[in-house]
Amino acid sequence: MMEETAGITARATISESNRSQIMHHLYQHGVSSRATIAKSLNLTPAAITKITARLIEAGIIEETGGIEGRKNRRSIGLKLDTAKYHVIGVKFARSIVQIGVFDLAGAPINVENLPEVTNDAVDETVARVHAALNDLIASDPAIIAVGMAVPGPYLRHIGRIAVVSSMGEWRKVNFLREFRPSVPVPLFVEQDARAGALAQYLFSPDVSTEDLAYYLLGEGVGLGVIDHGRLVNGSLGAATEIGHISIDIDGRPCECGNVGCLERYCSTPAIHEMIDEAGIVDDSRQLTHNQACRRLFAMASEGDKDAVSIVRRIGRYVGFGAVTIFNAYNPERIVIGDIVAEAGPLLLREVQSVVDRHAIPELNDTTTITLSKLPADAALNGAAAVAITQFLEHPSLFFDLT
Amino acid sequence: MMEETAGITARATISESNRSQIMHHLYQHGVSSRATIAKSLNLTPAAITKITARLIEAGIIEETGGIEGRKNRRSIGLKLDTAKYHVIGVKFARSIVQIGVFDLAGAPINVENLPEVTNDAVDETVARVHAALNDLIASDPAIIAVGMAVPGPYLRHIGRIAVVSSMGEWRKVNFLREFRPSVPVPLFVEQDARAGALAQYLFSPDVSTEDLAYYLLGEGVGLGVIDHGRLVNGSLGAATEIGHISIDIDGRPCECGNVGCLERYCSTPAIHEMIDEAGIVDDSRQLTHNQACRRLFAMASEGDKDAVSIVRRIGRYVGFGAVTIFNAYNPERIVIGDIVAEAGPLLLREVQSVVDRHAIPELNDTTTITLSKLPADAALNGAAAVAITQFLEHPSLFFDLT
Repeated sequence: MMEETAGITARATISESNRSQIMHHLYQHGVSSRATIAKSLNLTPAAITKITARLIEAGIIEETGGIEGRKNRRSIGLKLDTAKYHVIGVKFARSIVQIGVFDLAGAPINVENLPEVTNDAVDETVARVHAALNDLIASDPAIIAVGMAVPGPYLRHIGRIAVVSSMGEWRKVNFLREFRPSVPVPLFVEQDARAGALAQYLFSPDVSTEDLAYYLLGEGVGLGVIDHGRLVNGSLGAATEIGHISIDIDGRPCECGNVGCLERYCSTPAIHEMIDEAGIVDDSRQLTHNQACRRLFAMASEGDKDAVSIVRRIGRYVGFGAVTIFNAYNPERIVIGDIVAEAGPLLLREVQSVVDRHAIPELNDTTTITLSKLPADAALNGAAAVAITQFLEHPSLFFDLT
Repeated sequence: MMEETAGITARATISESNRSQIMHHLYQHGVSSRATIAKSLNLTPAAITKITARLIEAGIIEETGGIEGRKNRRSIGLKLDTAKYHVIGVKFARSIVQIGVFDLAGAPINVENLPEVTNDAVDETVARVHAALNDLIASDPAIIAVGMAVPGPYLRHIGRIAVVSSMGEWRKVNFLREFRPSVPVPLFVEQDARAGALAQYLFSPDVSTEDLAYYLLGEGVGLGVIDHGRLVNGSLGAATEIGHISIDIDGRPCECGNVGCLERYCSTPAIHEMIDEAGIVDDSRQLTHNQACRRLFAMASEGDKDAVSIVRRIGRYVGFGAVTIFNAYNPERIVIGDIVAEAGPLLLREVQSVVDRHAIPELNDTTTITLSKLPADAALNGAAAVAITQFLEHPSLFFDLT
């Protein structure tokens, strides 16, 4: 459902599209009979029989025992076993790089944090990622793909990030050229928040909607938007860069060239600065951004007034960002995730309060803002979701289906 | 290409989609043979013959004389005659309401301006629109549809505008309920700037791209975005409301509830205020917004320093809005239109200069900003484009094709 097809232009595309629809159906519904699939997708039973036979033969789906069919007749069930195959997700977030193995339902099998990355150790980290990928793929034959989530603006057709505030060395890495040649399975790269939106869409049935935004508040501030079931991409894949939308045209300069970028007010580096200035966390200058933020959030949740006041200030910026998301994309749901979301209900209340005052009432009435509930970080889960989405959309990239 | 189809789900949808593709092909390419269409759309010659026979019978397309085919063989041409049918476009822009009749290529046949609307004369204007629609449809049997362009945020499934700064009475009009029952042809309503984007896409081959933004600077400030060939809509149809994105979270309050909305700085009412404050246009308070703006632009183009300085100030705001468009939607092209675009090259230079300083270089290098070159106002042309798009997408809504 995520791909950009302009219509029905090729016979080959029709078969792949039908295959993809059957896989999506089984992915969402679990066990289903051929008759149910045929009815739901409005395809002929003959077409379903033919396509599913090929998918069974390739080992993508399987038959289960008899299930209760219509009119109490028993019929054979079909199933896409989400535990059978695995994907690797890699999240690159400036100083933090995480690698996880996930099953096709997005459940984490193992997650590893690489050592903290400094701007002059990017090469070293890239080498570590290579080694980790090699080890994981060598030891787990169930792995069928690798997905990577990188800070935006990510230039999709080039394979490179355009701006990485505070960690410029990452700009030199061409992710596609760096990793594709040495990885024996298909590899995909996506902007981190867009990957996060895919993860919410695929793995969080309680928030999944056709009009969904994932609002990433971490080392960067990012956004991924699904509009009527499709990602908003932009010409170079660099759309939905909320972190570089100005909230004050006379505001703080940003490395992207703009001034007053939202990222300069509520990313973890910006919050770390607030903490240092306020002097409320001991030795805060020695801590990593995450450590400093987590200390702040812990103090705030214990009721420390100064800490609460800083979290509220952060919430005000995040809230204005949310109002921008309302007016720019009008999603039905905004899911907030990454480190800053760990500030929890206190932050969410402040965000909601800014939204209540400043959003267009009809949009506010129809939009829900929640915190991410995914088992892993949404962008890391999202890196896996990028790979899984490709598998569901283009099964023939992964298995011979001709 | 504009509609939201989730895939191939129904036989009926496939036929309509094939019909629509053939109509799009003929609309874009002029005369084409069945063989060329079959090849271009990857459909079987038999399918093309069947579908085109029905379209000819219904009078939507026609055969032309022999044309030069492949291998120098003569073949029969097919043509969608864009002069054969007409549509009405109505642009509602607060104080200004325009009605035009257009052919299917977007060429204006006649355009009428209704008397200036005041906030307490909205009912009267609605009655005038009814009368004009009745007259036009009664006198021109070639009219097959009506398109309307209204200020956003337009709540599509309700039929009403959510916020109309400075002309609140328009909020009370439910366009669908008001006009659909009394109009004997299909009628469609779209947010004005989104209509303008469709007009650029359909009628301006020199700017048409799959990633296009139309930036409306008139009585309101609006935006329509086509992303990979599809409009960005939002859950209620209220996405891409650039006019209500804040450029200063401590800025001027707006009727939408937000503060620092772009519309408060570079719409014609905002510019009128600047002119009044500067006192450089005689009796400016007695002029309409458009008259005041046009006087300002005329003075600036004659070199009046104060006027030039105000146009530059406007350009700065418009430029920051453009940077937001880059980061929010990453289009390949931004077309600026409506009254404020009449400030011309002076404005465009200032916009470009702000963009050159503040946009991400890779995005700036790949994005072109131009002024609209449509024959009529882009949103008025756009109202027609909304109707024509529906005709090309859903021909069976207009003609019996079963």
